[in-house]
Amino acid sequence: MTFQIDHLGIAVKSLSAAKSIYEKLGLSVSAEETVEHEKVRLVMVPVGESRFELLEPTSEDSTIAKFIAKRGEGLHHVCMKVPDLPAAVERLKKDGVRLVSEEIKVGAGGHQYVFVHPTSTGGVLLELVQE
Amino acid sequence: MTFQIDHLGIAVKSLSAAKSIYEKLGLSVSAEETVEHEKVRLVMVPVGESRFELLEPTSEDSTIAKFIAKRGEGLHHVCMKVPDLPAAVERLKKDGVRLVSEEIKVGAGGHQYVFVHPTSTGGVLLELVQE
Repeated sequence: MTFQIDHLGIAVKSLSAAKSIYEKLGLSVSAEETVEHEKVRLVMVPVGESRFELLEPTSEDSTIAKFIAKRGEGLHHVCMKVPDLPAAVERLKKDGVRLVSEEIKVGAGGHQYVFVHPTSTGGVLLELVQE
Repeated sequence: MTFQIDHLGIAVKSLSAAKSIYEKLGLSVSAEETVEHEKVRLVMVPVGESRFELLEPTSEDSTIAKFIAKRGEGLHHVCMKVPDLPAAVERLKKDGVRLVSEEIKVGAGGHQYVFVHPTSTGGVLLELVQE
């Protein structure tokens, strides 16, 4: 049974501006990578067992662009690894916790995930992934 | 040289509402604790090498209350441990990175910290503490 903060997804207007501080601190920043279907360009900054994921929109109709237009730059979501995702989702649904979608989805690379709505977490969009 | 995400400070209206999801997921939630001079009541939720810190204001003029009034509930700051805080601060100042205060402060328990302004980090208030 281990939980872990997998990454913090941070919506930024400019990757080059946002990543600069992490480089200055001496952290390693990955090469830029584009995820076409999510309309984002991203870099990853590993920090201990976790990482920052800086997300820059590549299109005005991307989720991240809309987030920035509404809220400004900043934390978009927190992703936490959980030891038993199906059991966690069952428990949350039974207790009336609001999920963004009712079923577990499968993302790139086959990882399983679900998003918990911010109204149930104190304002943080919380992604749960199978450890 | 090790970096680590020490905690995520999350501003919430109600500790009992916000902590419930973490309990449902099977995480341990600390007893509630009040920090008088910061006018907050808090619980900590350890997750791997990091933790969530849920912060509920105890007064309308607390920093956390003002944050919630302006932005709503959600992430207030990210705290990262760095291996050499004085060197990091020197480097950031030299490079024109905006800090909330120019000097390293000493908090409860003697820990040393500095806050980097969100304009320099992609919208996240970033606390740096000495490892």
